[in-house]
Amino acid sequence: MFNGNVKVQLSNNNVLEVPQNTTLLHVAKNIGSSFSKKAALGDVNGELKELSYSLNEDSKVNFITFEEPEAEASIRYTLSFLVGYVIHNNFEGIEIADIGVSNESFYCDFQTTIKNLNKDDIKRINKSLNKLIESNPTIKVSEVSSEKAQQLVADQKYMRYHIENNENDKVKIAEIGDYKSLISYPIISNLSKLKNYKLKNISSTNWLRDVNNEALQRISGIAFATETALAAHEKFLEQYHNINHRKIGKELELFTFSDYAPGMPFYKHNGQIIRLELQNFLRKLQFAEDYQEVYTPFIMNEALWKNSGHWDHYKDNMYFTEVDDVRYSLKPMNCPGHMLIYKNEHHSYRDLPIRMAEFGQVHRHELSGSLNGLFRVRTFNQDDAHIYVTKNQIEPEILNVLNLIDKVYTIFGFEYSIELSTRPDDYMGEISLWNFAESSLKNVLHYNNLQYTVNEKDGAFYGPKIDIHIKDALGRSHQCGTIQLDFQMPEKFDLHYINENNEKERPVVIHRAIYGSIDRFLGILLEHYAGNLPLWLAPIQVNIIPVNNQVHLDYVTQIKQNLKSKGIRVAVDSSNEKMGYKIRNAQIKKIPYTIVIGDNEVSNHTLSVRKHGNKSAQTFEADAFIEKILTEKIS
Amino acid sequence: MFNGNVKVQLSNNNVLEVPQNTTLLHVAKNIGSSFSKKAALGDVNGELKELSYSLNEDSKVNFITFEEPEAEASIRYTLSFLVGYVIHNNFEGIEIADIGVSNESFYCDFQTTIKNLNKDDIKRINKSLNKLIESNPTIKVSEVSSEKAQQLVADQKYMRYHIENNENDKVKIAEIGDYKSLISYPIISNLSKLKNYKLKNISSTNWLRDVNNEALQRISGIAFATETALAAHEKFLEQYHNINHRKIGKELELFTFSDYAPGMPFYKHNGQIIRLELQNFLRKLQFAEDYQEVYTPFIMNEALWKNSGHWDHYKDNMYFTEVDDVRYSLKPMNCPGHMLIYKNEHHSYRDLPIRMAEFGQVHRHELSGSLNGLFRVRTFNQDDAHIYVTKNQIEPEILNVLNLIDKVYTIFGFEYSIELSTRPDDYMGEISLWNFAESSLKNVLHYNNLQYTVNEKDGAFYGPKIDIHIKDALGRSHQCGTIQLDFQMPEKFDLHYINENNEKERPVVIHRAIYGSIDRFLGILLEHYAGNLPLWLAPIQVNIIPVNNQVHLDYVTQIKQNLKSKGIRVAVDSSNEKMGYKIRNAQIKKIPYTIVIGDNEVSNHTLSVRKHGNKSAQTFEADAFIEKILTEKIS
Repeated sequence: MFNGNVKVQLSNNNVLEVPQNTTLLHVAKNIGSSFSKKAALGDVNGELKELSYSLNEDSKVNFITFEEPEAEASIRYTLSFLVGYVIHNNFEGIEIADIGVSNESFYCDFQTTIKNLNKDDIKRINKSLNKLIESNPTIKVSEVSSEKAQQLVADQKYMRYHIENNENDKVKIAEIGDYKSLISYPIISNLSKLKNYKLKNISSTNWLRDVNNEALQRISGIAFATETALAAHEKFLEQYHNINHRKIGKELELFTFSDYAPGMPFYKHNGQIIRLELQNFLRKLQFAEDYQEVYTPFIMNEALWKNSGHWDHYKDNMYFTEVDDVRYSLKPMNCPGHMLIYKNEHHSYRDLPIRMAEFGQVHRHELSGSLNGLFRVRTFNQDDAHIYVTKNQIEPEILNVLNLIDKVYTIFGFEYSIELSTRPDDYMGEISLWNFAESSLKNVLHYNNLQYTVNEKDGAFYGPKIDIHIKDALGRSHQCGTIQLDFQMPEKFDLHYINENNEKERPVVIHRAIYGSIDRFLGILLEHYAGNLPLWLAPIQVNIIPVNNQVHLDYVTQIKQNLKSKGIRVAVDSSNEKMGYKIRNAQIKKIPYTIVIGDNEVSNHTLSVRKHGNKSAQTFEADAFIEKILTEKIS
Repeated sequence: MFNGNVKVQLSNNNVLEVPQNTTLLHVAKNIGSSFSKKAALGDVNGELKELSYSLNEDSKVNFITFEEPEAEASIRYTLSFLVGYVIHNNFEGIEIADIGVSNESFYCDFQTTIKNLNKDDIKRINKSLNKLIESNPTIKVSEVSSEKAQQLVADQKYMRYHIENNENDKVKIAEIGDYKSLISYPIISNLSKLKNYKLKNISSTNWLRDVNNEALQRISGIAFATETALAAHEKFLEQYHNINHRKIGKELELFTFSDYAPGMPFYKHNGQIIRLELQNFLRKLQFAEDYQEVYTPFIMNEALWKNSGHWDHYKDNMYFTEVDDVRYSLKPMNCPGHMLIYKNEHHSYRDLPIRMAEFGQVHRHELSGSLNGLFRVRTFNQDDAHIYVTKNQIEPEILNVLNLIDKVYTIFGFEYSIELSTRPDDYMGEISLWNFAESSLKNVLHYNNLQYTVNEKDGAFYGPKIDIHIKDALGRSHQCGTIQLDFQMPEKFDLHYINENNEKERPVVIHRAIYGSIDRFLGILLEHYAGNLPLWLAPIQVNIIPVNNQVHLDYVTQIKQNLKSKGIRVAVDSSNEKMGYKIRNAQIKKIPYTIVIGDNEVSNHTLSVRKHGNKSAQTFEADAFIEKILTEKIS
C-alpha cells in the first residue's frame, strides 16, 4: 500500500516509515544523531549507496559504519575522486583518465599535455585537498542513462571510454560545481571523514596499462578510517621498507618486471640461481621418495579443460590461444596433463603409489590492480605432484607427504600450522567415501600427534584437504603447502589400475604442493631472511676483492677458478672503486663471504675472509676455506 | 597477334606454335614421343598443371619429368585420390573426408557409418587399386567456380567444407566416371606411372584433427617414381624401424603425444631425466664460462614482437593470446626477453662480455602434416644464449663458443662440420660492418685451423652466421648448433654500454645455440645410440632383480637405498615374472647394469652384475660397484 511514504526495514528488523525520497542520511538521523555520525554508507536491498541516496520504494536498509571495510574502500575511492577534482582545478591541460582503489591505496591517473607534474606539485595538491575537505562541499551524485552520461562528460574522452565500456544501462556521475566524473563505487558524503590520508607517489603509467597507448601520470596515496590506523600502517611501511622483497629483488639483481608482461617476472641470473636451488633441493628429496618427475605441454586443447572440470571453475582466470583454428588453453594447473600420462600406460596395484611430480609453469589471470611483486603474479612455477594410490595407501601416503613438508619447512626455519578442511555443502561423490577420506586424514594427524584446527565445510568440492600455513620471521602467516584428496579426477579421466584380484579399480589421487608457487615462496623467503639468504641459496656466495687490480688479479683469478671448480659461486670485484666502497657494496648485496687479497695473502698463499655481518676478517688457507664453505652449504 | 594459334615458349627458349586448346600432352608429343613419356606435369607460366591441361593463350611451359620432386608429390597425390575412388566404389556408407600427401606418404581420410575398415579391407583396396591402375582410365580434371563446384559435390559434406574454406575463386575437380573429388595439386594422367606404391596402414583420426570432431579412419601408404626408390625406402624403413626414436621413446617410456596437443611432447619420468641431464651438463660447462642463466616470461605483449622485428618474420608461426584485452604472443624465441633484461641495468665495458643463457621453452607453429616425433614439434626447449660483446671481443668470443660446442658434441661422439653463411642480398645495416663481421668469423675459423665451407649470401638479414652440422652414427647430418652475429637487435632495443672514454656505445649481440632444440637433440641421440644411452643419460642406470621376492627383497632394498644415496637411478623388478623374462625385459629397456641377487649374494654381501649387451655376469662388492659406476658416470 503506497501513500507517499515508504517503509524502511532496518538490520535489527525495526521498520520505519518515511516520506518518499527521504535520503539515507535523514533516515540515519531519524535513528539518532550519534548513529548518523557513525554511518558511512547504506546497503539498500543489497546494493551499496551513498548517504545522499533517496529512497523511493519500500527497502531493506543496513547502514555501514566507518569501522567496516566497505567504508574504508569508499573513503579511498572518494579521495581518488577528489584528487581528480583538485588536479582539474589547479592545473592547465590535464584530463583525468581513471580513478580507483587498490588494497589500502587510492590513485588518480591523468594525461598532461602541457607539463608533467612533479613532487612539488603533489605538495600543492595536498594543500588544496586539505582545504577542500575542510570546506566540505556537497558532492552531487546522480544515476543516469549511459546516453545522458555521454552528454554530461562530452568533453572528457577517457570518461566517455569508461561509459562505453560499462556493462550496466545506468551509470553514476559525481559532481562538485562544474566538475563531473563517472564513479563506480559509492562515495562518502561527509568529507570530514577523509582526513586520514597521505599522498605518497607520482609515477608514470600508460592508458589502460598498455605500452602501446599514450603515457599517463598517476598520483597515489593511502587512506584509513582512523588516524591510528593510518599511523600503524605508516609504521609498518617504514619497518617493511627494508625487507620488502621487491626492494631486495632490485638490490640483489634477482628479478624485474616489464610493462610488456605485467605480473610475469623476468628472473635475472641471481634470481634464477635461487629458483634452481629451490627446485633442486626438492628434487633431491623427491628422488629419495621415488617421485617421478614429468614435463607436460603448456597449452592444450580446450576440450581437455572441459573434461577435467577446470573450464567450469577456472575459465575466467585462464588464457586462451588457437592452434589450427582450435581453441587451446594455457595451463592454469598441471593435473590434466598428469592424468593423461597416467592413462597412457597400464598399471598394476604393485606399481602404486605412483608419485608424479612436475615443476609446472602455470598461467592464471589476476586483475592488474592486485598484482604485487612475486606475491601475486600471472604466471608461476608450481611444485606440483599427483600421487595415485589405492584406498589403503591414503594414510601412509599422506604421512609421507607431511614428513616431506616438515623436512622442507624446517630447513628454512619456518614454524607451521595445519588446517583440515571438511566436506562442503556442494560436495560431489558418495558421502561414505567422504567420511572414509575425512577419517583417513584425521587418523594420520591424530596418530602422529600433529596438532591441527578444523575448517568445517571448507574442503574442495572433490575432496577434503589439509592446508599448511607457515609463519615467517615477521610473524606473518602464509598458506603454502596443500594436500588434497581427489575422487573426482580419476572418475572424469576414467583412470584405473588392476587390483590383486585382477579387476579394474579406480585409484585415488592426492594433489600436493609444498612451496605452492616457487615465485611466491621466493618472495616470502626474501622477506623472511631480510635478504640474508643462507649460503646454499645465496646467488653469489663469495666475493673476492683484490687490494690492487694490477698486482693481485692473477692470484685472485686463480682462487676464483679454484672455488668455481668446486661449484662455488664467486664474483670478483675488480672495479676502480675504493676498498671501503667495495666492502660496503658486498654488504648491500648481502654476499655471505668477502675475501680481500693483498700482498700478504699472495705471499702467504692465504685468504682474508670476512663473513657477512662480521666486522673483522679471519685468515684461511684456500683449501681450508673451501672445505668450510662446502660443509656449510650441505648442512 | 592472335590467329587461332598460341605460342609456347619452352625452357630451352625454343618457341612452338600450336592450335589453341592443344593439351600439354600433345605439346610434349610434338617435341618427341620418348620425351612425352618422361613428362609428368607442366609448369605453365609458373603454375603446375596436369598434362591434360589445354593451352588457350601464349605461355611459357617447362615440363616436369618423373625424376623431379614435384612429379613424385603428384604421384602420391594422385594415389590418394585413387584410394578415395576405390573406397567409394567398394564399400557402403563411406564418405571421403580428405586426401593428401605428407613427406613420402599419401593418405585418404574417410568417415564410415556402417563398419570400420580393417587390415583385410586394405588388401581388397590394394587389389582394386592395382586393377584400376592397369585399366588406366581417363581422369577428367576441370577448373570451375566455387559455386559450380558446390553443386557438383552437393552430396559430399566434407568436400563442400573444403570448397568453402578454399581461398581462390576457382577450384579443381577430378572425375572418374560418377566419382568426383576436389583436388588441390595436379595429378598424373598416365596411371601406369603409379605402380611403385605400398599401402602401409589404417589408423584412427578426427575430422580436422580435432578431438572434438567425429572420428575418421585414415589409410596411408608410400609411393615413389621408380621401383628402385621404393625398394630403397622400404629397406631404410626396415633398418630404421628399430632405432626410430618414436619406437625407442615408447619402449623406454620416455615421452608420449596426445591428440589434445599434437606436436607437443609429454615427457614421462624417464624422458624428463634425460632432458634434465642434458640441461645440467650444459649448465655446468656454462658455469665454468661465466654464463648467466636467466628465466623470462612465456607470453609478452605483441608490441614487443613488433619492435623486435619477429612480428614481420615470424607472425605466421606464432601463437597468440589476450591479457586484459591486449594481444600477447607466446614466445617463439627468447631474444626480446633477454634484450629487456640487458636494458634493465647499466653496463660498463668492464662487464662485457655478458653471456646470457636460458633454457627457454618456445612455441612455433608447424603444419600438422609435417609433425614428426621429437624431430618436428610445436614447442621445444631451446638452449639459447645471447652474448653481448664489444667489437674487439667478437673474435675471442666466437672462439669461446666454438670450443664449447666442440666439448658438447665430442661427449656424444658426433663428428661435425662448419658452414659459414655470408651477407644476403636483403641485408640490413652498413656494409662496412658486414665486411668487418665476416672477416672476424673467417679469422676465427682460419687462425684456429677449423675447416669450413662457405654458403654465399645465406646469412641472416641481420648478420653473418656459422652453422654446425653433426653427423650421427647412421651417417645422417643434422644442423644443430648455430652462432649468429647480430647488429640489428642492439639497435632496435637501443642497447648500450659505457666505453673506456665514458661514452655510450652499442654492443654487438651473438646469438648461439648448441643443442638447438633439446627435444630434437634428444630424438637425434636416441637414434644415434639406437637407444643404448651412455650411463649418465640412462633414465634407469641399474636394475636389481631378486631371485626370490620373499627371501631376497630385504637385501635388494638395502642395496637400492645404498645406490640411491649416491644419486644412482635404480629400479627393482619384484614382479612375479620368471628370471629369464625379467633379464630380457631389462635388455629391452636398455638398462646399462642389471644386478641379480640370490642366496650367494646375500650371504657373501656381493652383487652379481651384468652389463647391457654382455652375456655373462661379474661379481662385485657393493662399494666397489658403486665406485665403478660413479667413475663411469663422470668420465
